[in-house]
Amino acid sequence: MRDIMPELDPDRLFPADARTRDIARQLHAGIADRPILSPHGHCDPSWFAENAPFSDPAHLFVVPDHYIFRMLVSQGVQLSDLGVPRVDGGPVETDPRKIWRRFAAHYHLFRGTPTRLWIDHALSHVFGVDAPLEPGTADAIYEQVDACLSKPEFRPRALFERFNIELLATTDSALDDLAQHDRIREAGLPGRVIPTYRPDAAIDPEYEGFAENVAQLGNLTGCDTASWDGYLEAHRSRRAYFRARGATATDHGHPTARTESLDADAAARLFRTCLSGEATAEEADAFRGQMLTEMARMSVEDGMTMQMHMGSHRNHSGPIMRSHGRDKGFDIPLRTDFVRALKPMLDTVGLEPNLRIILFTLDETTLSRELAPLAGVYPSLLLGPPWWFFDSPEGIMRFRQLTGETAGIYNTAGFNDDTRAFCSIPARHDVSRRVDCAWLAGLVADGRIGMNEAEEMAGQLTTDLVKKAYGL
Amino acid sequence: MRDIMPELDPDRLFPADARTRDIARQLHAGIADRPILSPHGHCDPSWFAENAPFSDPAHLFVVPDHYIFRMLVSQGVQLSDLGVPRVDGGPVETDPRKIWRRFAAHYHLFRGTPTRLWIDHALSHVFGVDAPLEPGTADAIYEQVDACLSKPEFRPRALFERFNIELLATTDSALDDLAQHDRIREAGLPGRVIPTYRPDAAIDPEYEGFAENVAQLGNLTGCDTASWDGYLEAHRSRRAYFRARGATATDHGHPTARTESLDADAAARLFRTCLSGEATAEEADAFRGQMLTEMARMSVEDGMTMQMHMGSHRNHSGPIMRSHGRDKGFDIPLRTDFVRALKPMLDTVGLEPNLRIILFTLDETTLSRELAPLAGVYPSLLLGPPWWFFDSPEGIMRFRQLTGETAGIYNTAGFNDDTRAFCSIPARHDVSRRVDCAWLAGLVADGRIGMNEAEEMAGQLTTDLVKKAYGL
Amino acid sequence: MRDIMPELDPDRLFPADARTRDIARQLHAGIADRPILSPHGHCDPSWFAENAPFSDPAHLFVVPDHYIFRMLVSQGVQLSDLGVPRVDGGPVETDPRKIWRRFAAHYHLFRGTPTRLWIDHALSHVFGVDAPLEPGTADAIYEQVDACLSKPEFRPRALFERFNIELLATTDSALDDLAQHDRIREAGLPGRVIPTYRPDAAIDPEYEGFAENVAQLGNLTGCDTASWDGYLEAHRSRRAYFRARGATATDHGHPTARTESLDADAAARLFRTCLSGEATAEEADAFRGQMLTEMARMSVEDGMTMQMHMGSHRNHSGPIMRSHGRDKGFDIPLRTDFVRALKPMLDTVGLEPNLRIILFTLDETTLSRELAPLAGVYPSLLLGPPWWFFDSPEGIMRFRQLTGETAGIYNTAGFNDDTRAFCSIPARHDVSRRVDCAWLAGLVADGRIGMNEAEEMAGQLTTDLVKKAYGL
Repeated sequence: MRDIMPELDPDRLFPADARTRDIARQLHAGIADRPILSPHGHCDPSWFAENAPFSDPAHLFVVPDHYIFRMLVSQGVQLSDLGVPRVDGGPVETDPRKIWRRFAAHYHLFRGTPTRLWIDHALSHVFGVDAPLEPGTADAIYEQVDACLSKPEFRPRALFERFNIELLATTDSALDDLAQHDRIREAGLPGRVIPTYRPDAAIDPEYEGFAENVAQLGNLTGCDTASWDGYLEAHRSRRAYFRARGATATDHGHPTARTESLDADAAARLFRTCLSGEATAEEADAFRGQMLTEMARMSVEDGMTMQMHMGSHRNHSGPIMRSHGRDKGFDIPLRTDFVRALKPMLDTVGLEPNLRIILFTLDETTLSRELAPLAGVYPSLLLGPPWWFFDSPEGIMRFRQLTGETAGIYNTAGFNDDTRAFCSIPARHDVSRRVDCAWLAGLVADGRIGMNEAEEMAGQLTTDLVKKAYGL
Repeated sequence: MRDIMPELDPDRLFPADARTRDIARQLHAGIADRPILSPHGHCDPSWFAENAPFSDPAHLFVVPDHYIFRMLVSQGVQLSDLGVPRVDGGPVETDPRKIWRRFAAHYHLFRGTPTRLWIDHALSHVFGVDAPLEPGTADAIYEQVDACLSKPEFRPRALFERFNIELLATTDSALDDLAQHDRIREAGLPGRVIPTYRPDAAIDPEYEGFAENVAQLGNLTGCDTASWDGYLEAHRSRRAYFRARGATATDHGHPTARTESLDADAAARLFRTCLSGEATAEEADAFRGQMLTEMARMSVEDGMTMQMHMGSHRNHSGPIMRSHGRDKGFDIPLRTDFVRALKPMLDTVGLEPNLRIILFTLDETTLSRELAPLAGVYPSLLLGPPWWFFDSPEGIMRFRQLTGETAGIYNTAGFNDDTRAFCSIPARHDVSRRVDCAWLAGLVADGRIGMNEAEEMAGQLTTDLVKKAYGL
Repeated sequence: MRDIMPELDPDRLFPADARTRDIARQLHAGIADRPILSPHGHCDPSWFAENAPFSDPAHLFVVPDHYIFRMLVSQGVQLSDLGVPRVDGGPVETDPRKIWRRFAAHYHLFRGTPTRLWIDHALSHVFGVDAPLEPGTADAIYEQVDACLSKPEFRPRALFERFNIELLATTDSALDDLAQHDRIREAGLPGRVIPTYRPDAAIDPEYEGFAENVAQLGNLTGCDTASWDGYLEAHRSRRAYFRARGATATDHGHPTARTESLDADAAARLFRTCLSGEATAEEADAFRGQMLTEMARMSVEDGMTMQMHMGSHRNHSGPIMRSHGRDKGFDIPLRTDFVRALKPMLDTVGLEPNLRIILFTLDETTLSRELAPLAGVYPSLLLGPPWWFFDSPEGIMRFRQLTGETAGIYNTAGFNDDTRAFCSIPARHDVSRRVDCAWLAGLVADGRIGMNEAEEMAGQLTTDLVKKAYGL
């Protein structure tokens, strides 16, 4: 994404003050052309494996994107009218033009949000749209994007190359055979697409089908997952399977940051209780906590970077969960405590010199109080970038201001786009790079660091720290 | 309040950077003359019903204003020496000149606070004072304000018109007969004064005289409030009574955001326990929570907007509560949790398309973590403006920065002055409008939105969103 | 520290905007030459009593400074390789040149942190270093600093005078005989060095050797500390001992802000349980809480300012606690609650007009929600400056923005450097003064206060409020 469309401000997201803006501009010029490293996200590997055209603008931009449909729902639009499938298979809107018009009619809601920046950037840079999206332009823009989608240069692999992606990690169930990744490797993309080991379905006793998932893990690995030792061995085996297909990291999404450090007997008993389906909520929580420590131990052995995404109250609305199922924009952040919660794991492996655990939070109050002080002393801990509701200009700036003075930048992990919206990837990295440069420019302007240091730091934040954090 | 006094900076509260300041100036010029909508506050309706002159400067500015006397108390001044009445009727200062001098002698304490902005603005714009308030000018300013107060153009109705108030809502007990509001309507003010249904005294089992209040609610409505069904019917009836006198909203001030969704039998049992006076603290809390859900259900029926003001530890000082009673500046914010607390209510009515629930918080940590994500998806939820300790330049700016990226502005409810200090109303709206324009100017300056969008948003924040949120 | 080295930006930490920067410059010029008041810190009184030369650059800057070694540990350096002693007396690095080189090799980690500002300032202003610290300059800078340390003008008393320190308070165990302070007084320094009464070892039942410490307190005072009344009397006596040697304040470092207000019998019973060594964690916590109220009562009697430093999870890493002991950089802030926790103490003594309790927090979320509202009404409460992880440009600015609108500045206590790194004292006060001026300049620039007011406030923040808060 090297050319800048005239309608996007080339100085967007830079500081207002002219002198500081000049510094930001110069810093940004030094890193703007670096390739994209996307070490955590939710793109579908089949896009690159099959390289089929994306279907239509509505199903590319609106239907799968919870950032977008949640905002429209907040103003009274029904999920069904946006084509979001119902659990009961009942009727939903199927006409992509109607969905697109509803989106355009509500596009003003996104003023001031990062979604607006991402969509404008994608429409402009990817599809050459030069008019603002609004009811009067909705149909024309639909046609323009739709026409693009049928062309070979808008197929996933072509866009991957055009986006200048050097590496993209997907997030994959521990039970996935990664066949799509095999096909991608055979296809010879100009950059790498690698899987990430996400074992929640076989680790969380409250996950639907937990016992079956554990059994399947046994089948896939030839381990006796009815026993605690066999269960751990199966994870080891499966992690190796993922590593052999390029994975360098695992990912864990638990409601809390709780960890445990039980002895082997107690852990084995707890595992049996969980397998039996009779675990209490407390026991399930303890088991998830124990498994974080086990996963960390395995990371010490096999070198995989461990990612922890904590603190979301998933599927907050009961009625929406029943009508439309999971992941429909009703995930709400929870207050999260890290200091006491992580201690059992950190007492076990926290000082390991080659372990890398990347912590993500949805609770900004923990940034300066807990996470920066923890990452600023434990060699195993790194801070992941602002996540989800905070992957935004203000969120990124707050993150730097709240963590930079205690943890510095070298205990952070660069940027993650964490998206399933493929066309927004360049936009998200663009925002991140610009805001990081704006922050660094402020440090230069008021004499906290020198310009040569800021240039080095901008490179670190853009790619170098990502490579180090994820072992790339 | 259209003329600007020379001693107040016409660019006050605008950004320092010249280019951004110009944008803010232009945005502000577009909305500065809009009338004032004050949909939530604590003005005394008798002011407008009786139109008696305000008594004197001390009793206008100091004695009733907890923002002011709390700050003087913090530096060792006694409430009694400021004329604040004692519970036991014991002697307090009665000479308004002495009270005013004490205020002036401590006025430097307010440097950097919004109170300072409000007082300066009122003295200057309302009373034509052109010298800073300090010990040396205290007597002269007292005389000048006092002289004004005896003139007809400084009576409440004249000021109401001069302040360009289009609508002002008072907050009224569910047991109030609203006779003052009847008299105001008859008087034919140039704008509307409407009541708000505040039923805490008949909903909170821990409120003094709860059982008597419930009985009185029965008397007023002819409902059998000894039964659960009759009690609910009485609320319905009383809400209709308020609506008939112009009310469009209810207001609820609970210590926590707890809601419940009990079945009718359990609710009826809990109600009987509370009426008996034998409810535990837990049962009282549960009952308050259940009543929020009941009130929300009634709002679905009758269209009244529901306001929730949560999270104040009222009357924190035991000794002050005993000597001077409630509301003496010792209300301290509490940590508040919304995500789990609101779920029972939201699972019941949260997706109703025509329900409007406005959430206020005294805990800023919930803004980006909980409130913006909730309001950014539930159609029934709107975010109320920064409240109480946060109705200030920094507080308003933080509110926009912390909520704007997730909820946008269209899930917010414009500004509330929430004041009982009538002469500060223009000042408070002035601060709010200026800071909102400053925030929008920043978004324009760094390319996040266009100027035409910012102009539209400034109008929304000033009046349009208020009308929509409160059904005006 | 009056001369500015050319390599440090003379406008460092001032606002970017030219007009606001000019205001900050002018404000700073008005207070930059004021002497240093350091009313809370951890300098070793023996430095000034004995006036021995500091040993070498590594043991001056690196080995004792947890800000520095924690950051190196976070990137995999071993404490032992930095010369930090082991509990078991096992071997650690003893060559200061090697330690210094390790420090220099990792100095880039501090980019953007306050440590970087402090070290650069000390190297430049104190030792005349004019090259940036990095591997290539490490040896030369070591030699330059080391050569200085052998000169008389770099001995502690000479630096004390050169730093223009008017007053420096140390922190001393209640059991300390303060002999070093006697020697300092005899030496006739140009400023005062005074002790602070820190009785944690004889108040916290979980402190190592609590019962022995209480017994020793009895021995020192001739009181029967086996009885509750005698124990309290011993504290009274010991406080008088400290006051006679210049102390004006006490200091208390508890994990939480819990206070209690037990009657004398209950307190006496709890004391006996704690002395017996059989107190539960809950009882120990209650006792600490009771003792805060007792200490506050004694402060009402004897006029000593009471400091409360709450909310650190000390020695978070079990393995580090076992290998290297306490205070090795593994203290992590905890979420802290003040509103309910302080109520028992405040109901007892909170309205006392001559009591001064200074509250420090490591949990920034309490600043606007709890601490500013509490200090903005209780006459006994003052806000201590940003502490520890927040003694930094961003931390200080957030503190002012989060507390200034509710508590103003006159309920704050000026600056504390709170350091054991003597050579960083001028640097820390320099940062604080500059950031306070930057904040005030913003208030002037946008019309919230006048220039003459800002000048007065700058003086208050620099020295006047410190003298008032600490009774100096």
